[in-house]
Amino acid sequence: MDFNLIVLAPVGSIIALGFAAYLAFSVMKHSEGTDEMKKIAASVRQGANAYLKRQYTGVALFFVAMVIILGIMAFLGYLTPFVPFAFLTGGFFSGLSGFLGMKMATNSNARTANAAKDSLNKGLRVAFSSGAVMGLVVVGLGLLDLSIWYFFLDWFYTGLPDAERIQKITSAMLTFGMGASSMALFARVGGGIFTKAADVGADLVGKVEAGIPEDDPRNPAVIADNVGDNVGDVAGMGADLYESYVGSIVSTSALAVAAGLGTRGVTIPLIMAAIGVLASIIGTFFVRSGEKAEQKVLLAALRRGVYISSAIIAVVSFFLVRNVLGSEHMGVYWAVISGLLAGILIGFFTEYFTSDTYKPTQNLAGTSLTGPATVIIGGISLGMASTAIPVIIISVAVLASYYLAGGAADFGMGLYGIGIAAVGMLSTLGITLATDAYGPVADNAGGIAEMSHQKPEVRKRTDALDSLGNTTAATGKGFAIGSAALTALALIAAFVGEVELIDPSFKFNLSIMNPSVLIGLFIGAMLPFLFAALTMNAVGRAAQKIVVEVRRQFKEIKGLMEGTAQADYATCVDICTRSAQKEMIAPAFVAIVAPIVVGLVLGVNGVAGMLAGAAVAGFVLAIMMANSGGAWDNAKKYIEAGNHGGKGSDSHKAAVVGDTVGDPFKDTSGPSINILIKLLSMVSIVFAAFILSNSIIK
Amino acid sequence: MDFNLIVLAPVGSIIALGFAAYLAFSVMKHSEGTDEMKKIAASVRQGANAYLKRQYTGVALFFVAMVIILGIMAFLGYLTPFVPFAFLTGGFFSGLSGFLGMKMATNSNARTANAAKDSLNKGLRVAFSSGAVMGLVVVGLGLLDLSIWYFFLDWFYTGLPDAERIQKITSAMLTFGMGASSMALFARVGGGIFTKAADVGADLVGKVEAGIPEDDPRNPAVIADNVGDNVGDVAGMGADLYESYVGSIVSTSALAVAAGLGTRGVTIPLIMAAIGVLASIIGTFFVRSGEKAEQKVLLAALRRGVYISSAIIAVVSFFLVRNVLGSEHMGVYWAVISGLLAGILIGFFTEYFTSDTYKPTQNLAGTSLTGPATVIIGGISLGMASTAIPVIIISVAVLASYYLAGGAADFGMGLYGIGIAAVGMLSTLGITLATDAYGPVADNAGGIAEMSHQKPEVRKRTDALDSLGNTTAATGKGFAIGSAALTALALIAAFVGEVELIDPSFKFNLSIMNPSVLIGLFIGAMLPFLFAALTMNAVGRAAQKIVVEVRRQFKEIKGLMEGTAQADYATCVDICTRSAQKEMIAPAFVAIVAPIVVGLVLGVNGVAGMLAGAAVAGFVLAIMMANSGGAWDNAKKYIEAGNHGGKGSDSHKAAVVGDTVGDPFKDTSGPSINILIKLLSMVSIVFAAFILSNSIIK
Repeated sequence: MDFNLIVLAPVGSIIALGFAAYLAFSVMKHSEGTDEMKKIAASVRQGANAYLKRQYTGVALFFVAMVIILGIMAFLGYLTPFVPFAFLTGGFFSGLSGFLGMKMATNSNARTANAAKDSLNKGLRVAFSSGAVMGLVVVGLGLLDLSIWYFFLDWFYTGLPDAERIQKITSAMLTFGMGASSMALFARVGGGIFTKAADVGADLVGKVEAGIPEDDPRNPAVIADNVGDNVGDVAGMGADLYESYVGSIVSTSALAVAAGLGTRGVTIPLIMAAIGVLASIIGTFFVRSGEKAEQKVLLAALRRGVYISSAIIAVVSFFLVRNVLGSEHMGVYWAVISGLLAGILIGFFTEYFTSDTYKPTQNLAGTSLTGPATVIIGGISLGMASTAIPVIIISVAVLASYYLAGGAADFGMGLYGIGIAAVGMLSTLGITLATDAYGPVADNAGGIAEMSHQKPEVRKRTDALDSLGNTTAATGKGFAIGSAALTALALIAAFVGEVELIDPSFKFNLSIMNPSVLIGLFIGAMLPFLFAALTMNAVGRAAQKIVVEVRRQFKEIKGLMEGTAQADYATCVDICTRSAQKEMIAPAFVAIVAPIVVGLVLGVNGVAGMLAGAAVAGFVLAIMMANSGGAWDNAKKYIEAGNHGGKGSDSHKAAVVGDTVGDPFKDTSGPSINILIKLLSMVSIVFAAFILSNSIIK
Repeated sequence: MDFNLIVLAPVGSIIALGFAAYLAFSVMKHSEGTDEMKKIAASVRQGANAYLKRQYTGVALFFVAMVIILGIMAFLGYLTPFVPFAFLTGGFFSGLSGFLGMKMATNSNARTANAAKDSLNKGLRVAFSSGAVMGLVVVGLGLLDLSIWYFFLDWFYTGLPDAERIQKITSAMLTFGMGASSMALFARVGGGIFTKAADVGADLVGKVEAGIPEDDPRNPAVIADNVGDNVGDVAGMGADLYESYVGSIVSTSALAVAAGLGTRGVTIPLIMAAIGVLASIIGTFFVRSGEKAEQKVLLAALRRGVYISSAIIAVVSFFLVRNVLGSEHMGVYWAVISGLLAGILIGFFTEYFTSDTYKPTQNLAGTSLTGPATVIIGGISLGMASTAIPVIIISVAVLASYYLAGGAADFGMGLYGIGIAAVGMLSTLGITLATDAYGPVADNAGGIAEMSHQKPEVRKRTDALDSLGNTTAATGKGFAIGSAALTALALIAAFVGEVELIDPSFKFNLSIMNPSVLIGLFIGAMLPFLFAALTMNAVGRAAQKIVVEVRRQFKEIKGLMEGTAQADYATCVDICTRSAQKEMIAPAFVAIVAPIVVGLVLGVNGVAGMLAGAAVAGFVLAIMMANSGGAWDNAKKYIEAGNHGGKGSDSHKAAVVGDTVGDPFKDTSGPSINILIKLLSMVSIVFAAFILSNSIIK
């Protein structure tokens, strides 16, 4: 039965990519509008392409170096010979996801602005289609790469006994995740630094010093700001979720071995993913509404798409689990449901804490009346307090998926249950990512409308889309963090499983009373803080350079402020690009070197402790940073809507300080922590044999 | 041999209290200065007494309720009958330490200001003596209470076999720590809310809105601000460190049972503490310098005191360990040294990150040139980055003390080594606390000099003392956090030991792959964030009330701004008192209820996970908050010293925002986290039997 169903994986992948192509062509049929709009869109596109070209060149060097290192390790017998290739393809497809998503986004921004001239709904349709291309490309390429490797390895190891073949397959596929994670790290961190350096720099001089509005074409950093939305929030986010998606699938497949589920257990995550792809495509058809829809109705339309996809998955996986695993394993189905529900609930509570339609953000806006200091204190405590509910949701999901899958009687089944919960949560990725990735397109569309001097109602519509995008972005971030936490747990279990495969006689001591584990926990808990510090500092330094450059242009280019001379946008884009390339090295170094150093001193027990410490502290810190940032952003918007004195008042100025602090919180450091905790696990898995042989403490 | 040496504990306690009394009398011989100074000092004293009276009344209710609960638990057989009494004495002595320290501090502030009229050194001597009274009272009362219980229980259980007697003694003494922790929590949280509500409120209206200088007598919140220094930084800090001190000693004594060291192992921590007391007293004699000393020389004098005490302890404990435990256990001695060194190193690096004589804080001051947002981003990333080194120091200390004490061959000995490292670190508490507690006295002295219109040079001297106090306060905070981390680890081990005593057949599964432990880690990592949010919000709300009141007085009291009418100080003190009482309930509730709820659901394995999660994430978060806050404070001072535009410039205003955000970071939330992680452990230990019998998951 399962050997037939596994073909769903490549089929699903091809359908996803085909449908993405269809959507892309239909978007491209729309006009980009006036010549001015075309010109601006071309500048943004050009900047984004230049950035990605430079980034991929830099990252290619890293990949060459890593392939050499992995090749040597394979030569020394620490790794199977497939690992370097698996690593490469993982990185390649992750990068390709980001690249294609960004291509689409930079081709949709002017089209969205132009469509918004007709109606809000038309604008939404163009922007959402562009987001859907991104979502489907990510899941399509993920499934494609996984399918190719699965079929190749299954063919290559034909003849080996079943148990051994499965072990070899899952083991090789696991390491493929490290390539995806590495690429994701560079994309998220580099993109995050780029976008926030441009944003903060543009705001500090433009809005605060020169007093010109956001997206004003006189601001030399305005194009860089728009480029940033694409390289950070689109390409970075795509690579991030590609990596979560693939990571959750391969780690769960690997856990099937210890659970004793055999090939059936290995293929279930792949098939589930394929079902998710089809459900997501069906869901996209429900994202439509009347021509004169309000924002509330549009949000409901987006939600409807996600809920319908979830419902389809909930129904179909029931039959999938029953047919493939048999009715004695229906607990696995309930684990899927736990994951699905947890994802939806975390999304909902993220919205509650960060949207200005609810009390927390409205109260935060009120703190602006006593100045920036109280805004900062209020936002940080909001973020900190908002960590409690997601932690409880994830805790319940872990407990439920573990016990429902049969963990009380069979530890391996319990872990498999946790893994499958992550797969369940991420199965709707095609459509959740679509609702998320449309945000930056709408943001860009607003910028283009402003710069090309469209009628106020056009800007008002794009603003409405942008604001809707802020809500879905917050939900999306909660989803990304929640799935990262579950994936990280599955990866820790996969790491332990990998060590057991390498040396079945190794005696684990994973007790928290083992000092190696305890120290691992300490170091692990510290890493997300260090990582966040490095990325925030990077934004600060890069923004400083933008400030200097923008000030220089205001001073040296005569007629710029009067609008008679053109700003030199390219230099700002170039500064951001260079800074991002340089600044992403240190955080990446920390993520890759930490597990190896900790492993060489404390052994695999210490590494497991470090992974657990990073997962729990990183989860909490990432939520705090994302929610503080989101709430500050929306508190500012709430004031701009006319509350507490409105635009230009002292309370608005105080809220802008909060928003600026929130920028690197929510768009650089917070989301990068997701990748950190997964990359740490991936590196640990790949280097497990090396650590096992060479550590000081065993 | 050891049965003779244990008398050192009560002897050390009496010497400490006697010397404290001598110092107190010698301070009281100094004059409080002019009538105006006396009047101001009396107001501060009165406010502080009123606060403590109210706080102790509220806390007494809590203690009565807890004693009833513990009594019922004892009646049901979950606890030995001594527990309610041990709980009471722990709380009583902790509160008494804070009370006496504060009494001394409020009697020394005007005396310090008056002595500073003569010379900087004279001012230092008065302030330092006052701090030394606090330090010696804390260690003296701690040792007194421990000695009384030890001798009483040893007598009570005479006749029982050795092993059983020791178990009963240490078990009862452990629970005595819960009383101290509860009291400490109320003192730290309540005091922290009081002091920062007054400080932030006074600054927001006085400095920012009305443009009058700090400590200006026209500001109605100025007395509350000065009272706050005493109830927060003196009484709160005293109760906090009392609790660490006692906690480290009793948990290490309890670990001696599993280490198989018998009575000798139980008494060593007590004797070591007694030696520390004597070494601290000797150290205080070295804190002196010429009459015309500069600030640098004074800092060196303070340091000399600490280093000499440390050296004495290092030498004497060598002979102590050799004579009591025998030369086969010299590893225990090296564990002591690891703890001592770790404490000194953490203090040094805390200073490096927060003092404006080093790069990090100087660079932070530079970020003020681009406004408050960059100051906040810079300060938070400084705090986050500064967590790496203390984590590594604690990691090395844990590893070293575990293995040096013989953990490789004997797990129990290893844990005992970690405990004894905490005792070693805290053995210098008498003098380190003295160098720390003198800070608020100097701060108050500055306020009194300002309000009583002393000559500028007097204020300049008290400012120098205050600034020196900021450095020692930062060092002291690092020390408090570091010792809390080690104590927390010893307490987790003691918790596990306690469960083993209650039910020797219980099968632990403390592996991080056990979902109960994993969820425990998640919840534990979240608790410090939630706790910090609650305490910061409390400060925000209370400060808001002060803002409203100060604005009201400025408006309604005619002639206040002109200096012809007197402000109504008492109302501000009263508002702070009421707010602190009300606001400390929620955080305390979280700390006490969390272990019980987690325990009832997840069992003792889950509780152990929660304790570990809270210890690691809490340690990192506490350091981050303390160091961000300290660096912001000193960056502002650095600008006020004339850098980046100096006082009144835009960069100064930006730095003031950082300083205000830092206030609750470093003086309310950060230090409260120390107590949270210890109180969680204490509650878990006391309720271990209850949890063991009634949990859903075993």
